[in-house]
Parts: sequence; structure tokens; C-alpha cells
Amino acid sequence: MPIISGEDYMNRINKLKSDIWIEGKRVEGEISEHKAFKGVMKSQAALYDLQHSKSIEDIMTYDSPTTSEKVGTSYLIPKSKEDLLKRRSMIQEWAKVNGGLMGRSPDYMNTILASFAASVDLLKGEKNCFPENLLSFYEYARENDLSFTHTFINPQVNRGKFYFEDDEEDEIITAQVVDRNKDGIVIKGARLLATQGGITDEILVFSTAGADEAHSYAFSIPSNTKGLRFICRESFVYKESEFDHPLSSRFEEMDTIIVFNDVLVPWDRVFYYDNPKITGKFFSESLFFPLALHQIVSRQVIKTEFVLGVVQSLVNTINIGEYQHVQDKVSEIIIARETMKAFLVASESQAKEDANGTMVPDLNTLYTAINTFPKVYPRFSEIIQSLGASGLVSIPTEEDFKSEINGELDLYLRAATKKAVDRVKLFRLAWDLSMSAFGTRQTLYERYFFGDPIRLSQSLYSNYEKDQYVENVHRFLGIESL
Amino acid sequence: MPIISGEDYMNRINKLKSDIWIEGKRVEGEISEHKAFKGVMKSQAALYDLQHSKSIEDIMTYDSPTTSEKVGTSYLIPKSKEDLLKRRSMIQEWAKVNGGLMGRSPDYMNTILASFAASVDLLKGEKNCFPENLLSFYEYARENDLSFTHTFINPQVNRGKFYFEDDEEDEIITAQVVDRNKDGIVIKGARLLATQGGITDEILVFSTAGADEAHSYAFSIPSNTKGLRFICRESFVYKESEFDHPLSSRFEEMDTIIVFNDVLVPWDRVFYYDNPKITGKFFSESLFFPLALHQIVSRQVIKTEFVLGVVQSLVNTINIGEYQHVQDKVSEIIIARETMKAFLVASESQAKEDANGTMVPDLNTLYTAINTFPKVYPRFSEIIQSLGASGLVSIPTEEDFKSEINGELDLYLRAATKKAVDRVKLFRLAWDLSMSAFGTRQTLYERYFFGDPIRLSQSLYSNYEKDQYVENVHRFLGIESL
Amino acid sequence: MPIISGEDYMNRINKLKSDIWIEGKRVEGEISEHKAFKGVMKSQAALYDLQHSKSIEDIMTYDSPTTSEKVGTSYLIPKSKEDLLKRRSMIQEWAKVNGGLMGRSPDYMNTILASFAASVDLLKGEKNCFPENLLSFYEYARENDLSFTHTFINPQVNRGKFYFEDDEEDEIITAQVVDRNKDGIVIKGARLLATQGGITDEILVFSTAGADEAHSYAFSIPSNTKGLRFICRESFVYKESEFDHPLSSRFEEMDTIIVFNDVLVPWDRVFYYDNPKITGKFFSESLFFPLALHQIVSRQVIKTEFVLGVVQSLVNTINIGEYQHVQDKVSEIIIARETMKAFLVASESQAKEDANGTMVPDLNTLYTAINTFPKVYPRFSEIIQSLGASGLVSIPTEEDFKSEINGELDLYLRAATKKAVDRVKLFRLAWDLSMSAFGTRQTLYERYFFGDPIRLSQSLYSNYEKDQYVENVHRFLGIESL
Amino acid sequence: MPIISGEDYMNRINKLKSDIWIEGKRVEGEISEHKAFKGVMKSQAALYDLQHSKSIEDIMTYDSPTTSEKVGTSYLIPKSKEDLLKRRSMIQEWAKVNGGLMGRSPDYMNTILASFAASVDLLKGEKNCFPENLLSFYEYARENDLSFTHTFINPQVNRGKFYFEDDEEDEIITAQVVDRNKDGIVIKGARLLATQGGITDEILVFSTAGADEAHSYAFSIPSNTKGLRFICRESFVYKESEFDHPLSSRFEEMDTIIVFNDVLVPWDRVFYYDNPKITGKFFSESLFFPLALHQIVSRQVIKTEFVLGVVQSLVNTINIGEYQHVQDKVSEIIIARETMKAFLVASESQAKEDANGTMVPDLNTLYTAINTFPKVYPRFSEIIQSLGASGLVSIPTEEDFKSEINGELDLYLRAATKKAVDRVKLFRLAWDLSMSAFGTRQTLYERYFFGDPIRLSQSLYSNYEKDQYVENVHRFLGIESL
Repeated sequence: MPIISGEDYMNRINKLKSDIWIEGKRVEGEISEHKAFKGVMKSQAALYDLQHSKSIEDIMTYDSPTTSEKVGTSYLIPKSKEDLLKRRSMIQEWAKVNGGLMGRSPDYMNTILASFAASVDLLKGEKNCFPENLLSFYEYARENDLSFTHTFINPQVNRGKFYFEDDEEDEIITAQVVDRNKDGIVIKGARLLATQGGITDEILVFSTAGADEAHSYAFSIPSNTKGLRFICRESFVYKESEFDHPLSSRFEEMDTIIVFNDVLVPWDRVFYYDNPKITGKFFSESLFFPLALHQIVSRQVIKTEFVLGVVQSLVNTINIGEYQHVQDKVSEIIIARETMKAFLVASESQAKEDANGTMVPDLNTLYTAINTFPKVYPRFSEIIQSLGASGLVSIPTEEDFKSEINGELDLYLRAATKKAVDRVKLFRLAWDLSMSAFGTRQTLYERYFFGDPIRLSQSLYSNYEKDQYVENVHRFLGIESL
Repeated sequence: MPIISGEDYMNRINKLKSDIWIEGKRVEGEISEHKAFKGVMKSQAALYDLQHSKSIEDIMTYDSPTTSEKVGTSYLIPKSKEDLLKRRSMIQEWAKVNGGLMGRSPDYMNTILASFAASVDLLKGEKNCFPENLLSFYEYARENDLSFTHTFINPQVNRGKFYFEDDEEDEIITAQVVDRNKDGIVIKGARLLATQGGITDEILVFSTAGADEAHSYAFSIPSNTKGLRFICRESFVYKESEFDHPLSSRFEEMDTIIVFNDVLVPWDRVFYYDNPKITGKFFSESLFFPLALHQIVSRQVIKTEFVLGVVQSLVNTINIGEYQHVQDKVSEIIIARETMKAFLVASESQAKEDANGTMVPDLNTLYTAINTFPKVYPRFSEIIQSLGASGLVSIPTEEDFKSEINGELDLYLRAATKKAVDRVKLFRLAWDLSMSAFGTRQTLYERYFFGDPIRLSQSLYSNYEKDQYVENVHRFLGIESL
Repeated sequence: MPIISGEDYMNRINKLKSDIWIEGKRVEGEISEHKAFKGVMKSQAALYDLQHSKSIEDIMTYDSPTTSEKVGTSYLIPKSKEDLLKRRSMIQEWAKVNGGLMGRSPDYMNTILASFAASVDLLKGEKNCFPENLLSFYEYARENDLSFTHTFINPQVNRGKFYFEDDEEDEIITAQVVDRNKDGIVIKGARLLATQGGITDEILVFSTAGADEAHSYAFSIPSNTKGLRFICRESFVYKESEFDHPLSSRFEEMDTIIVFNDVLVPWDRVFYYDNPKITGKFFSESLFFPLALHQIVSRQVIKTEFVLGVVQSLVNTINIGEYQHVQDKVSEIIIARETMKAFLVASESQAKEDANGTMVPDLNTLYTAINTFPKVYPRFSEIIQSLGASGLVSIPTEEDFKSEINGELDLYLRAATKKAVDRVKLFRLAWDLSMSAFGTRQTLYERYFFGDPIRLSQSLYSNYEKDQYVENVHRFLGIESL
Repeated sequence: MPIISGEDYMNRINKLKSDIWIEGKRVEGEISEHKAFKGVMKSQAALYDLQHSKSIEDIMTYDSPTTSEKVGTSYLIPKSKEDLLKRRSMIQEWAKVNGGLMGRSPDYMNTILASFAASVDLLKGEKNCFPENLLSFYEYARENDLSFTHTFINPQVNRGKFYFEDDEEDEIITAQVVDRNKDGIVIKGARLLATQGGITDEILVFSTAGADEAHSYAFSIPSNTKGLRFICRESFVYKESEFDHPLSSRFEEMDTIIVFNDVLVPWDRVFYYDNPKITGKFFSESLFFPLALHQIVSRQVIKTEFVLGVVQSLVNTINIGEYQHVQDKVSEIIIARETMKAFLVASESQAKEDANGTMVPDLNTLYTAINTFPKVYPRFSEIIQSLGASGLVSIPTEEDFKSEINGELDLYLRAATKKAVDRVKLFRLAWDLSMSAFGTRQTLYERYFFGDPIRLSQSLYSNYEKDQYVENVHRFLGIESL
């Protein structure tokens, strides 16, 4: 059966034996037993298992158009508003399992691949483009329920306006095509921040707009392809205790630097290369933006609900709900939740069919959502810190509660509506969400999820249709528009 | 024909000869010729005329269920999502005429009256309640295309927490029922801030929650009822030149203090009285909130578009669109527009039918909108000031352009994309929108449109269903909910 | 006696008969009787009279080094910390009279002229520079207690990055030297925003950094010089009633466009010309910045105290001081006052003597102050609006209180701690400070008092000595500084 | 010699063998070898060693009035502005060693003890007060260079407005006097958040205002007093590598819950007890506030400089200094530094001598500082995250650089002005400052350093002398003050 189970996922990744480095050592043995990956792989496996849940089968799967077997809804190319709603429901079912904290649960990349497949017409008849490869790879992925990481950030050597790599460097730094031969294209260099790098089946790589010829490509290869290396940052799984670090221990997705040491991408895995024009066009005109953003915003709504639950529970626990400033702060989260949800609903309600019959959610609405969330999410951490206050540093550990000082903790850490151990569990959750290395990485990620906020806002300004409003004003004033 | 024309409106109001005081004098003669009211009445008349426009007749009117004649859509009780959309379109057509700056264009109060009529079941069988009066008055208003002002603020003597009027005052200050006799109820005291007071056919008065018996009432009476007096604040029509004050000269709606000097409200105009329970219930459970908010938010979207047009025109005029901080500021307005529009669309998309078949837009979404706009609107003025800068105080007058120094102005005030006179027109518009006494009153009004922002946020906190999110978190942690 | 009286000031200005245009007409007759200038000239005259007050004579004046007569302290070049303190006291005595709302009371420009005189060494031996003219003019101004306006903004035709006037325009727009002959230099073109233009004895004109040769000059000429014209913006004195518009009627300083129609500046009034290098150097290295900023910040402290008084009085009046959010908002103003005062005190405490023995207040501290006030001042208006709320639009006029409806106003507008007429006076003051055309111009001025906030912040970044902190960090990490 | 060395400190603490629990285990053996305390004790020891540095001996020490030996300046009761400046210099010398990140370096508590000693007159002749004990203990501490922790937060069981412990609890939770006998007073219950608890010689305990009789006390006892237990929160020393966690590994001060199990405080260590009136008075009227705040603000200036260095180094490293928004963000830190410094300088400049000849820095200025820093410090973390972006999650470890993938890191992580290893060091520092569990605790601490920001602002509102400003406004309006 196409949809896989958690165990299938674990086994498949373990078998890859990809080249992954962490803390100066190559990962050996079962990666699912490695302290840094164990928790998150288990959480990912739980998502795959959920696809088999009978009660939500209609949400989580659909019948494959080729095999009629159940395949994952995240691969579904929406043809109607109902399909969009089904996609949203599926995404949110998965997100609820982890409070929306797994930004790269498999639906994210699956959605992107589906958006590519739905946009395949853009590649037809264009130089160095292989729409048929893209389509057949999409089907292969769907039928095998593959998981992906990806990366589209170049190394951050110099971000000055007038810096171009070639001017100054002798060596290749950013990943690029260095050879094209009968077997495929050869990639050399690095790319940054492949989240879940090493614990997915494949890595999907594609360029954004503005790349030169050698940097214009899109392809997918297995994680254990020869010459491909994942270099991990420090792991934020400092403790495996779910009591002590309820989130870090389960949802630490890891970020990796990807090094391509002359990696051969076989032709049947190349979607396009050496074509800057199409690279730019595919990035901006494909369904990548509307469908990826629809997935992201669906998840962010759930994450906001999770934060709301944590904060309100904390308010109840120490009984501070009567204070005006507390109400005000919780209201900010409620407003954020309603606002993100309104974006989601309005994007679906205003969806339009494109030339190929895909039902495309409204991009302006979603683009506004992605301009909004990076501003509200960091505020959530501030609110947690403001309301949690000293409680966030009165956090003894699981071991303390198991020790002989247990009685003192029970007495002195009790709360208005909770016993000490539950109160500490809750405050630890609040701390892990907003103050641990895991929590702050979440904040950083939401800040930058879809790129630099400055650029997001410039891009909104540039692409937005503003002339009609200017003309209305000119008409009102009786002056000419120049 | 039920829908009236602008001329009908003017004539009807002129004939009332209501008791209106301004600058220490009673208004005598035709009020539509009075400097303080002339502009706004002309603007209001234009709205009535627009109802007769053939091209948008289907939007602006519907067939009266009693007479089959065309009546105004603002009186329509929505029975379907299409009706909601029709209402939105109607409201926005009117708003476009004045840039959304007439907060009390007739659709506002007409909508409220319709929302009351749609909620009439709440009054049935209750003490001192007259649902039949309400219904027949609603029909009468609809068939005669009446205009209304209203007021629900009490005088601001003392806003301390523990102050109650009766404790300290011998005299009656806030309007209340002082007698009930065979002809009706008698009202004495004052209420504040009836916008458009004196230039509407009627005044609709109703209490909010929390009133005592004598303050619990709802009724409507003609503006020229005996004993009813309107005391105006200073008029902000300092100049009648549309060149100099393009907005103040046209859309200054005036705010008035209403004094009831033993005003008799005849029984057939009383909807309820002396019933605090129903007063509270009707205020919070009727369709007042969802329908009034739907009207408000529909207008606010147009107002935001107007501001966007002004700001972008200003950016074009002095050619500052290339600066990142300018793009950022304009983006804020774009985001505001998309956000308010998303609330509107989502409230309609999530509308639900109530027991009487009325299609009710989603209240949480609209309530979030009304929590949001008071925060973004004042920012618009800041943005205009930041971008307009010195241009906002380089504003010679219409007379200057007609004088012999005309040539110097033409030369020294020209702009990148506009001649001097047009540039000055535009900057004067920007100034009138954000910096004139008219403009700042607009800001104050949007800040407080639906009440004190502090209370709005408290109310959101209190009424919002948060428990489910708390329970999800407790389930996640494996702790009990107390 | 050198220090003049209010009457002297009035007479001197009336005699000038300068070429001033307002609302399409040239000002004829006594300017001090003109509605637009009457109030502000009376307020300015009161400042001159205050110099003669015996009780503060030691603060307001010092003995002229040339004549030993009393001259105004605003002309004092500080030689000690006591002198700085004396300057501060003098400035604040004047500011207290008008709540700090007269941004261009005579001490502002007098201070600038003194700062120029104290920097005269920069001009010695430089091409086209006349330090002796500057010094003797300074003495002449001091001994005659002259008043000044100035202007250093060019017309805002096109603010694009790559726009240069000469590329596109055939005609001269920005004021420049068009001839140099035996009598002096000849100026043609316009400059913007001379505040108090036309009601001062002289106009002092000087260029900022970055000007080309023809735009590099500094000189002073009488306001009635041939060819010099002042074009006023609309006057914000809409009403002369001090009850109705307590601030507009008294402190409306007016802003003017200055047109130079081939104005001859005689050689003895030229300080420098045709020397871009010295123009830039004098602007940035003279004592202009530290002394002008010291004057500005001294005034802003008083303005903040005035706002604090208005807000706290309003809080007392309607008895809202018990609410936490009210306390929070008032605290913001208190914090602003303490912060601005700390900048002032610290700039004096850290003052250093320069090569000529002038005691120079610390520039970084003052520069931070001027980066801070534009952010806090607009917040004051927001706070007034938030706390004043409906009270700010319940503002009947002086005439209403004199009319037969007086009794109703007395009853319905009374406040917890004030009778109606006093409450309305106070709310009108709050309104005039934050919401009238006068009040918003104040906000705009404080926003931009020392230039565009964006540039102020860039300039702070660029000029600040940051390397030492970078080096400390590198030392901490044990890495090399490149 | 009274001032001790780092080694003295280490030895003294090791000998105490206090009852400290961490992760369910009692600390055994040398505490200075324990992973959780090793780094911070070494950092603390370095401070003691610095006192012996000849070049700054005059700053770090003064001659004991009793023994004439060198004692630490943090014990100095300032008698002149020079003394205040000496105190500031001393505090800042220590702060520079740790970037101001050790909020509880010994000078903090020493200053508090000195402020108590300087206020001893408040206790004279009062019931249950022992001024002589306080004075002699102060001398003893000074002559032995003792270190202290303290605690003044009660357990956070229920923070509702109408909750009082005694109503609901049978058991004693908050620490209180449960017996008074011939040997002293007996304390039972807990107090929270003793930072550095267990690694100081003594613990100083005192109540704040509003306590009842049993909770009104002040005393000091050795950390190893019988019945006294320290329960640690989770340690944030996750790694001992100074490369990986440059701050956590060195400056993690630890927070502890203090449990008093019937602890006897001998009479000679009791300063007062059972006297709520004096407890409140001593808290609010002693020199505690002005002197403690002067210490805190002195340190915060250095911390701000440290942050400025980190941020500017980061800007240089990836060459982003040319962007306007980057300049803007760095300027915010510069402004914060200048502002905090102005508060410090102005508090000293406006210092006044009290009745006992102590030179007291201006409290309003310092109180404004402590209202300001909690708002700016969290912003620093935001700025670091905004500018560091992806660089903050591209952080391989020390072990990676020592491994065979070293070459790839060198190539792909190089920066504009730094080699890869130095760039990673810098970004790790930025991460540890703003995103690690250590860094976020710093943020939480600065947010709450001197109490809940809401209360700080209420307290400023309540205590500030506002009447004079109200009266000025009333005089301006010609109205009476009621």
C-alpha cells in the first residue's frame, strides 16, 4: 500500500546510511537510535502512522489516479475548493500532533513537489527543461510516500550589495553545476540549512530567481547519493527526558549544511538546468507560492492554537486571569489566531481555477499572512516570558521529583489549580517553547520562514496592484494621473 | 417610490426645523445652507442619488417584501451568503463616494435597525417589550428611506470604578425614563455624541448592557420632537473651499450632545423600557453585533484603500518609491487592507444561518477586525506624516493660486510627476486626512469606533472559547485539567 | 538699553513692511494687527518683556563684553558649566511661558548665531570667507536684540536618489548665487519653511553639507530686503478666541516659503560663499550642533512637562487615575520627561572646553536626545487621545457658554473635579495640543525638528565610535580583528 | 589583607559543604569542580583577583576606616560625588570582565549591605530592631570580603488579587518566623530565586513592604547553616566547551529555591523582625533603592556596550553595514547605551547629601533607568536574531573544526572579514547571548530585574511629584485647581 507506516519510514531512513556529520563524528549505526535524531524520527513516524487512522482516512488520503491505492493528501493537486479544504484539514491533523512545531513535517515538501507537478506546463518546450522527469518523479514520490528535505539558501559569506562571489573567490563556494556529461549534471559547492537533512529519503534542490546559468537548476536525489554530505549544527537535544524538555526531546528537526562533492545527478532526476530565465519564471509563476503558503499558514494556525493553550493554562495555573494586562496579552494571541485563520479561510474562499484546472488559493491573502506571522510569533515568546516570570526559572528536573526532596517540591511549587509536578511540567513546556535553544530556533524560523522580512515587505510593495487606488484619488481630486 | 433622492433628503431635513444649537446660536432657516452642515448634507444627498444609478441598481436596492417597490439594500435582512455579499457591495459603493470617511452614512444606522428587526423574537412575551412596534417601525423606515442618528454614550462625569451617579448627584444627568403615562414614556437627561445629530430624520436611542431600570430602553423619535435639543461641538468646517479643505468641507458629520427636556416618546415608538434583563440580552444576543460590524468592516476596507491611494500618489509625486523604508511603510497599508478584507471575506465565508433564517456573518472574525482597525488606522496618519514631511506644511491656498504670485508657486512647488497646483491639492488632501481637525477626529473615531480598545480586548478575552486549547495542552503533557 | 521690550519688538517689525503674502493677498498695514500674526507676535513680545523681570534678571541677561549693558543670555557663548546652566535656565524660563510650544522663540536662532560666532576660527584664512563680518554681525545682533528666522530646506521637487536638479530643470528652483558683483552676491530661487518668516528682524540663511558652489553660502539680511518675499501657508488661527483655541490663537508661528527674486546681499552681510568645502566643514564642525541641540533639548523638557500637566489634569478631571493602563500611559510621559532631562544634565555634566575656551556640551548625548524626542512626542498625542476619548469631541464653544443653553452645558458637562466650563477649557487645551491643525503641526515639527529621523539614525550609526566595543568582543573571543 | 583572592573565594566556598541539590542529587565533594558551578565560580574568582591589580587598585579598593587595610570599593558608603564615581568605576571594571552578564557579581549584594548600613538610623529606637547588629555585620563582611546571595520573592502559588495564603493553606509555604527563643528566631518555609545560591559565603534575607508580622524580618546567615537547603533549577551548562557555549560555560549563575527547615538565626545576625512598619519603611526609605539602582545601571551600561560590540562585529563580519535597516537597528543599541549612560551620569550629577552625609544619587533618574532597560534589553535579542539570521543556526561545534571535515567548514563558512572558525566563534557568542537557555534567562532577568514592569510603572506614577505640572496648566488656563 502506498501510504507508509512509521516503521516503514524508520527502516527506510536507517538503511540509507547517508553521510551525516555531527559534533566531529560521522553518524554510524541506526540513525533512529542516535540521541540527536531519535526523538524527531519517532515523532515523524507517528505522523505516518496517523495516515492509517480509520476515523480520518478521508482526510489523510485520497485514491491514487494511477493505482487507485490510498496515497497521502499532501500530494493532492487541488481541483476544487473542497480539495483545498481537504488539504487544509490533512495538514492541520498532522500539525496538531506536534503543536505545529515541526515546520518540516513531510506535508511541507510534498506540497511543494505537488505544486511543481501542477506547474509543469511552464517547462514545456523550454531549453534544458524536462517536464516529463518532473511529472514521473512526482508520481514516484506519491506512490512511495517519500520524504524530502530541501535547501535554497546560499552560504552567507558577504551580504554586501555589490559583492559577487566570482569577483573575489578562487574556490567554488555556492553549489553549482560544474559539469554536464552523458550521465547527468555534476554539482559542487555548498548550500545551507537543510532542515531534517539526513532523515528524509531525498533532497530536493532548486534555485530561486536571480541565479546565473551554473546556479539555475532543479533536481531531486536520494540522501545517500555519493558525494553528498550533511553537516549538522549542534543538536539542541540536551536531554532526552520528555519531562524536562518536552519539545526539544521530540521535535528537534536539526539543520544541516549540505556539501556537494562533485555529486552526479542522473538525467532522469534533472527537472531543469542552465536556464536562468525558466528558473526565475518557475520560482515566481509556478504554484509554488500559493500552495506552499497555504500549507504553511494552515500549520501556523495550529501552532498559534498550541501557544494559546499553553498561555491560558499558565494563566489558570497561577490564577492571573483577572488582571487587565494579562487579558490584553492573551487577547493578542486570540487575535493572532483569528487573523491567521481569516487569511486561510479567505484565501480558500477567493481561490480561482488556473488554466490547468488547479484551484489556486488567493496569493495576496497568503502573502499578507506570511508578512504577518513573523511579526506576531516572536511576540508570543515575550508574552510567555511576561506572564510566566519567575516560574520559568523555578524549574527543577524529573530527577528532583524522583528524589528524596520530592516532598519539599510538592509543597513549595504547588499552584492555584495544579499540583507541583503538573505545574512544573507546564512551566517547562512554556520554557521549552519560548526560552530553550529549541524554542528560540522556532522563533528564528518563524521570523524567517519565507525569507527576510525586509524583502517580503519590499516584494509585497512591488508586486501589489496599487494604481487603481491612486487613480481613484486623482479622480476624487480632479487631477490628472501622470 | 420608496428610495428617495438627494433632493428629497434635503427637503425633508430642512422642513424639520429641529432644535439645533451651534456656537451659541440656534440654527435658523434652511439647515442645508448653514456653513457647518452644507457640505456634509450635499455629500449625504449624493449617496441617495446614487441609489437611482441604473448600473448598480441591483446592488443598491431590492424589492420590498410588502410593496415590491425598490427599497435600499442597507435595510435588507440577509437570508443567504449572496445577500451578505450584496450588502457588502452596497455599503462599499456608498463608501467609495467619500473614501469611507462618512462613518455615519445612512447604511450604518439602517443596518442596525435591520439587525434589530431580525432579532425581534428576543422581545416576544417579555415584560415592557413591544416587538410589534419594532417590526412596524422597521417597515416604515424601510419604505420611507429614513435616516437616523443614534447615541449610546453617557456623559463622562466621573469614570472611576466605584462611582455611581445616584450616590453623588441630585440632578438627573444621564438620560432616563422619568415618567410612564398613557401617551408614552418621558425621557429626561443627556446623552453624548450623536454624530450627524440634527441632519437625520430620526434619532434611535437604545441602552447597552449594565443599565438599571430607568436607563433600560429603546425607541426612535423624529429629530424635531418637542423637548429634544442637539448641541453641536465646534464645527471643523473652517473653510468651504474644496481646494483648501477637500475633506472637511464635504464630510464633516458633526457630533452633538443630545438633551432630552422631558421628551415624550409615544407608545408606538417604544421598543422596550424598564427591563434591564432584556436590555442586556438584546444588546449582546441580537444581530446587532454581527450585522453592524459587517457594515463597519466593509466601510473600513474602502477607507484603507483610500488611504493607500493617497499615500501611493504622494510617493509617486515626490518620487520616493525606491527607498526601503518607504516601501515598508506603504506595505503596512497594503497589509492592513488585505487583513481587513480577509476578515470580511472570512466572516461571510463562515456565516451561519440562525433560527429565523438570517444568515449571520462570523462574529469572532468581525470582532477581531474591530480589535485590529483601531490599532492600524492611527498608524496611517503617522505614515502620511512621515512620508509627506515638509510638503504637509508647504500648503498655500486656492486664493494664492488665483493671485499674482501664482507664477512663483507654479515654479517652486512643482513635483516630479505633478504640476504645482496638483501637488498642492494632493498634499492638502493628505493633510486634511491626517492633520486637520477633521482628520484627527477621524483618527479618534476609528480608535473608539466600537468602544474603548481596552474593553474590546477584555471582552474578547472573556467571551472567547479557550478551554479546548488548554485541554489539548494538558493532553499533550499528560496532566489533568482542574 | 540693549535688551528690548515687547513693544520695541512689535514696533520694529511693524515698521519693516516686509513683502508677505497670505491667502492670495499681500499683508498691508500693521502686521501685528493681522489675524494670522497677532497672537504669536503678542506671545513673542511677552518673551521680550520677561527679560526685564527683576527676579530673573540674572538668568535672562548678562553684561555685554563691549558695552557692559544687559544683553540677552541666548547670545551668551558659554565659557563654563555655569554658563551652560545659565543658558539652560534662560531657555526654560522663556519656554515655560508658552509650554515649549514656540519652537522658534528668539533664543533658538540667537543660539545658532552665537554658535557661529564661537566657531569663527574655522573661516579664518579660507577662500571667500569673512569671519570678521560674522563676528561684527553677531555683536550687532546681540547689542540690538535682533530676532531671526532661517531656512535650510530646499524645495521638495523630487527626492529620488539619482535626481539632480540641473539635469532636468531649465529654471532655477533652489536658492543660489547667480551673481557676484562689487556690492555683494545676488541670490535667486526659493527655500522652504522659514518659521516665523516675516515677523523677525532678519533672516539668516546658510547651507548644509553637500551643496555645490552656487549653493554654498551663509549670510543674514533684513526681512524687508528688496526682492525678498515670504509666502505663507494657510494660517491655523481659525479662531481668535483663547477659550476655544487656547494654543492656536497664541502660538501659531506660521511657516513660509522664501522667494529670492535677485536679492542683493551686501558684502558686509556675507559670511562665506562659493566654498563647498568650508560650507560642509562649518556645518559639521562648528558649535552649531552642540549649542543648537542644547537649546532644543532644554525647550523639549519644558514641553514634556507641559504635556504631563495637561494629561494629569485630564486624568484627575474625569477620575481615571486608578486604572492600570492609565497609570502606564502617564508613566510613559514621566519617563520621557526624566529621560530628556537626563540627556540635558548629562550633556552639561560631560561638557568639555574647546580650543577657544567655549564650554561645549557633550554631542553624543544631545544627538541621542534628538533621536529620541521624535519618537516619544507623537506618542503624547496618542496618549491624550486615548485618555480624553469622547471628551475631546464634546467641545462646545465660548459662545455656547455665553448663550442661553449655558445651564444645560453646566449640568451635563460637569466633571468629577471640575465645573463644566473649566472641564471644557481643559479638554479644548488637550484637543488643541494634539488634534487641531496647530497641534498636529507641532507633532510634525517635533518629528522632523532636526531632520528626517531615518537620516538622524544613519548619521548616528556612521559617526559613532564603535570600534572599541568590537575590539573588546574580539579580545573576549580571542580572535583577530581584521 | 581584607580583600581576598580568587583562590580564597574558591576555598572558602568549598569548605562550606552547604546543602545543595541539583538534578535529584546532593552536591558532594568540591563544588568548584561540579560541572554546573565550575565555570561561574572560576569567573567569580577572576573578579576577586582583579581587586589586586595594581593599575586599578585605586578604583577597586579603599582604606578600611577601622583597619586601614584595603577593602573592596563595593562596600564603600559614598560621601561625595567622587565616591559615587569611584563606585561606578569599580562596578564597571568588574562588569567588563563578563560583559555585564553576571547580574549577581559580589558588588551587587555588597552594595545592598552598604546601603543598609548607611540607613541604620531608621532602625534606632524601634521595636525588635537591632541597628548595632547590622552595623557590626556590615563591618565584618567588609573586612572579610564576604559574598552573598539573597532572595525576596515568595513562592508563586496564586497571584490572584484576593488570594491570601492563610485563607487556604494549612501548611507553611512562604518563609516566616515560626519561633522566637533565647538563641534567636526560627524560620520555616521557602523563598525563591536565590541567584548564585550555594556559591556565596552568606545569604542575606529581607522582606519587602506589605508583609505581615511573621514575614517581616531581615537577617544574614552562612550558606551552610543547619536546616538551610538550596534546590537548583536545571543547569544551563549543557557543554563545558568555551568555544561552543562561550557564555553559558562561564557565567551561568544558577537560580535556587531556598528551603528553611526550622533554621535558627542567632540574635546577633537579626537586623529586625516582627515589625511590619519598619520593614516597609526600611525597604522604601533606606538607601537600598538609590544605591542598588546605581550599581545595576552601572552594570547595564557595560552590558549594552558588550551587546553593541557583538552586533557591530557581526555586521562587519558579513558586511551588511551599508543597509539602512541595519544602521537603524545598530543605532537602537547606540541610543540605548547613550540613554543608560545619561541616566547614570545625571543621577550622579544630581546627587544630594542626606542627613548622615551619604551622597545619594538621584532616585527619579535611576528609577526611570530601571523602567527603561527592561524594554530595550529584549529588543537586543531581536536585533541579533534579525541581523544574524541563518548564521545563528549554522553553528557547527569545536569538535567539527577538529575533525576531518575541517576543510569544508573553512571553505563554506568563511565570511567577508573573518575566517570560518572565527566567524563561527562570533556567531556562537551571538547565539549564546540571545538564543541559548542561558541567553533567554538573561533576557528574562533584565525584564524583571527590579520587579514586574507593570508594578514599576505604577510605582513611578504613584510616587512622582506631578502636581506642580497640573498647577502650571491650570494657571495657564486661568482655572482653579480643585
